[in-house]
Amino acid sequence: MHDFAWELFPICRSLTGEGVRQTLARIKKELPDLRLVEVPSGTKCFDWEVPREWNIQDAWIIDPDGNKIVDFKKNNLHVVGYSIPVVGEFTLEELQPHLFSLSDQPTAIPYITSYYREFWGFCMTDILRKSLKPGKYKTKIESRLTQGHLTYGELLIPGRSKKEIFLSTYVCHPSMANNELSGPAVTTWLAKWILKNTDRRFSYRIVFIPETIGSIVYLSRHAEELKSKMLAGYVISCVGDERTYSYLPSRHGNTLTDRVSIRALKEHAPDFIRYSFLDRGSDERQYCSPGIDLPVALITRSKFGAYPEYHTSLDDLNFVTAAGLQGAFEIYTKCIKALEASERFQATILCEAQLGKRGLYPTIGTKNSALATRVVSNLLAFSDGNYDLQDIAEKLGMTTSELRPTVARLLEEKLLKEVD
Amino acid sequence: MHDFAWELFPICRSLTGEGVRQTLARIKKELPDLRLVEVPSGTKCFDWEVPREWNIQDAWIIDPDGNKIVDFKKNNLHVVGYSIPVVGEFTLEELQPHLFSLSDQPTAIPYITSYYREFWGFCMTDILRKSLKPGKYKTKIESRLTQGHLTYGELLIPGRSKKEIFLSTYVCHPSMANNELSGPAVTTWLAKWILKNTDRRFSYRIVFIPETIGSIVYLSRHAEELKSKMLAGYVISCVGDERTYSYLPSRHGNTLTDRVSIRALKEHAPDFIRYSFLDRGSDERQYCSPGIDLPVALITRSKFGAYPEYHTSLDDLNFVTAAGLQGAFEIYTKCIKALEASERFQATILCEAQLGKRGLYPTIGTKNSALATRVVSNLLAFSDGNYDLQDIAEKLGMTTSELRPTVARLLEEKLLKEVD
Amino acid sequence: MHDFAWELFPICRSLTGEGVRQTLARIKKELPDLRLVEVPSGTKCFDWEVPREWNIQDAWIIDPDGNKIVDFKKNNLHVVGYSIPVVGEFTLEELQPHLFSLSDQPTAIPYITSYYREFWGFCMTDILRKSLKPGKYKTKIESRLTQGHLTYGELLIPGRSKKEIFLSTYVCHPSMANNELSGPAVTTWLAKWILKNTDRRFSYRIVFIPETIGSIVYLSRHAEELKSKMLAGYVISCVGDERTYSYLPSRHGNTLTDRVSIRALKEHAPDFIRYSFLDRGSDERQYCSPGIDLPVALITRSKFGAYPEYHTSLDDLNFVTAAGLQGAFEIYTKCIKALEASERFQATILCEAQLGKRGLYPTIGTKNSALATRVVSNLLAFSDGNYDLQDIAEKLGMTTSELRPTVARLLEEKLLKEVD
Repeated sequence: MHDFAWELFPICRSLTGEGVRQTLARIKKELPDLRLVEVPSGTKCFDWEVPREWNIQDAWIIDPDGNKIVDFKKNNLHVVGYSIPVVGEFTLEELQPHLFSLSDQPTAIPYITSYYREFWGFCMTDILRKSLKPGKYKTKIESRLTQGHLTYGELLIPGRSKKEIFLSTYVCHPSMANNELSGPAVTTWLAKWILKNTDRRFSYRIVFIPETIGSIVYLSRHAEELKSKMLAGYVISCVGDERTYSYLPSRHGNTLTDRVSIRALKEHAPDFIRYSFLDRGSDERQYCSPGIDLPVALITRSKFGAYPEYHTSLDDLNFVTAAGLQGAFEIYTKCIKALEASERFQATILCEAQLGKRGLYPTIGTKNSALATRVVSNLLAFSDGNYDLQDIAEKLGMTTSELRPTVARLLEEKLLKEVD
Repeated sequence: MHDFAWELFPICRSLTGEGVRQTLARIKKELPDLRLVEVPSGTKCFDWEVPREWNIQDAWIIDPDGNKIVDFKKNNLHVVGYSIPVVGEFTLEELQPHLFSLSDQPTAIPYITSYYREFWGFCMTDILRKSLKPGKYKTKIESRLTQGHLTYGELLIPGRSKKEIFLSTYVCHPSMANNELSGPAVTTWLAKWILKNTDRRFSYRIVFIPETIGSIVYLSRHAEELKSKMLAGYVISCVGDERTYSYLPSRHGNTLTDRVSIRALKEHAPDFIRYSFLDRGSDERQYCSPGIDLPVALITRSKFGAYPEYHTSLDDLNFVTAAGLQGAFEIYTKCIKALEASERFQATILCEAQLGKRGLYPTIGTKNSALATRVVSNLLAFSDGNYDLQDIAEKLGMTTSELRPTVARLLEEKLLKEVD
Repeated sequence: MHDFAWELFPICRSLTGEGVRQTLARIKKELPDLRLVEVPSGTKCFDWEVPREWNIQDAWIIDPDGNKIVDFKKNNLHVVGYSIPVVGEFTLEELQPHLFSLSDQPTAIPYITSYYREFWGFCMTDILRKSLKPGKYKTKIESRLTQGHLTYGELLIPGRSKKEIFLSTYVCHPSMANNELSGPAVTTWLAKWILKNTDRRFSYRIVFIPETIGSIVYLSRHAEELKSKMLAGYVISCVGDERTYSYLPSRHGNTLTDRVSIRALKEHAPDFIRYSFLDRGSDERQYCSPGIDLPVALITRSKFGAYPEYHTSLDDLNFVTAAGLQGAFEIYTKCIKALEASERFQATILCEAQLGKRGLYPTIGTKNSALATRVVSNLLAFSDGNYDLQDIAEKLGMTTSELRPTVARLLEEKLLKEVD
């Protein structure tokens, strides 16, 4: 995953444009069934409309001494996202309103965008900005804003049930690692892992979209379908550093997604930080909005907005590590396994089954004969169709994996049946 | 309010009679739309019937030395309420069964009534009683018990909604201040304050009734209407001293009235005393009775039965103060404001609104742009028609007043609509 | 009860056979209306079928020296339950797979059965077993397995309501005292106590059955009836020693049975041990199974499996005492009284009743008049048909017995009526 993130890192992504297409094309190499969808500029979606497509070739500033002090080709964060084209000579004073830096992070280039108002600008370290001398600065942004398309990728993986587990990640940030490349990297590898297991109970819907406008576009086309099919869902973002694990619940906070995630985190990373829905910031804003109300939550490592490198050039592939990505991948696989295991069973016969005649109970009754088959009889006793396997496992102080062999045996004996 | 209470103080009120009419007439000067209702003696109301009307002109006792030792005209508490007429000379021994005093409060004249059994009697300080010498006492009570009416006042103040906030207070006690004149005083001033605000969301129903029989009469005529319309209600009584604040919940204890009141008290008077419904004693006994079950509670200062001056001549306008009345007035206005603010809103569009195009979101996206409009987006995110504004305010750690400007702006932008 | 247990102790009971019939016949002497039911071998009941009837006349082992070292007539635990007949001479080596003893309880004869697989065996102390020398052992079990019947007893005691309280105990263990004779002894005495009270609100259904197969047989015939009629139920077992009290809840854990039992135990034996349904082991396994779901729980003294004497010859009538039985009897009578008291009342008139005209309220109103009739008015105020008498008693900080006289008076005054 870390190598994959390195490959994607240099691409200049934004809400729209060739950077998104290149990124999705690279993901499609890993996931050949990824369907790429183009949505024309100007398409209405709820309160929004798809913006013009933005593409950029080059951008720089040459200082009065002739030094190219800012160069888009060296770091695509140097240009404000969606900058309109500009070419000319400006005094430092004229340039200042178009410059962005962070006085409290002087070595960081900030990430700045102006998607919905025409503007141009440059981002740089505060050290550089403070060193600028008066004089004429040659300035160029070679970009285009055209009627084009917003591009997203969608992968549907069928399972035995039409009920879906939903994974959503975004592909609209330029060269930053935790927010965002950790997201597509972990999501791609999760998709590959899901595809490897051909005995899927649930179906999977995995989307790679630009943030905000992308989820709004997707919901404007698929909200009803998602509402009827989604069992559980995640926005996968900020899943690459090693500092911590975090949880940001769905709006209602008590969905199956929430229950399964909290359980998994308690086991996998008991010191995880619990955020409130008030701390939200990504596409869960749309998925959980009133009237949409999907059971979507986030398991992150350092959450967006909660680490100093966030939205700066410091959010790089040193901050994000192979181990960090792997940790997130593992916790998500745990959740998916738990979701796959969230089935409900029902005992097929009234009263206890006669286990002895099926070789499931010792034929000699002693002081301890009940203990020997405790798991079998407890599993049957709680399989009333209301508790799911995870609930029963918790009651018995076991894991669902530990229960699996017994479930399989009882299904085979037709003493249990799965209920919907 | 304190001056108003002084004006009403000397009037000899009882369940019925001219004292009640004079009191209501004085209130009607403040509230010209107050409707006065006369209910004939003998009218059946549930298990009860309206008693005969009681009026009294004079009453006194002259001791063997010719001194008028007890004089109704000096203090109307001297006569047992609903005393039948009497005139004659009695030995002290004959008189004793008709005398009431309090050995543990020797300077207090107790308040005694005998509404439903024919009786006559006098109340006096225990000091006086103990000083009485044997001999003949000339005794006179000039009262009448006649087929007449029970009188109450009702004020309906319309609002945008037919749902009502209900205030009930009583006007049936002679010269006592906390229990009772604080009640009509605070209620009258609340009514004036409600009338001043012409943009009322809810309608108001305010009644000035004799206690117990008055609320039973009122319920016998209006129970179904109250049950269908009442959003929240209060019995306003014992709201004039400065010692404490108290809360007596509705029978179920978890109505909107209860929630709003507890919130207001926690903020306004965190040391308030929490009583149980078992400590009830006024018209909440009727309003909360099985089958009536209205959401009626009480915020009091020193609650009836819980202060030594209760039902004695010591419950006067020194015990009740202007500041005491004002404190109660303020907590009730807080509750009414909170009730008026208990509206539910619904976001009008699916997914987040595009705030930028409405000037509600910075057009430049930075590390912190989400924070700038946190209140707007949180308010929209929780406006699903289920949470009321108070709930949302609590979620956001804010007050409803702090949320109001944002609510107004979003209503104006038609991003929110009120739901019923 | 202890004497009664002594009488039953020597009988060799098993799932079926003459021992069960003798036991039921002895119980019927105490409870003449006990109905004895015979169910033929081979009868299908859910997943099970009634086994052949087992009867045994004699069994022994004679050692190489000619000593009868094991003698069924001295202790019926010596023979594995449901042993097929055998007669012959065996070497010690040949005999060993048919011998049972407990190395960690060398002085105890274990209780062993082989109901559903043909087998024969002997149980003995480990001391004896370890002393056995090589040589030929004459061995005889004089038993018969025949097409016969399973026998159980059922006693229906009618009450005013068709709703039933259910007591189930078992009669299938040979000479052991806590598990099992304490059960039939306490249950028989409870039945006698119930019959003595002729003003029963509820009906009672009391069954004396063989464990497991007996309750399955009973449910296969009566499940729907039990489901529609059962208000609360108990399996009465292990109710004879003095060590502790214990509670094993119903599967859902929150039924009326559970609520009433926990209340009674907290009062009667606050140090009682609380088990989980996972610790179940007797007929509650059937009564609480999915799709049956009856409100059945257990109050025991030392619970089956939780005391070292369990299922050995050490579980005798020294371990079980008269005081131990009496303690269990008392806690069950408390529960039954509480269940009988779990009626719901409804006030018959809206608003408060006029208590004065019924002599229930002082006619002179003073500071304290409300206190005098607090119980009456509180009882009426909470009698809305939702709270049962126990709930109201708890609200008022009283016991139901303390409330009874007031209930009776208010029923007489027709101010209260019972609701179903």
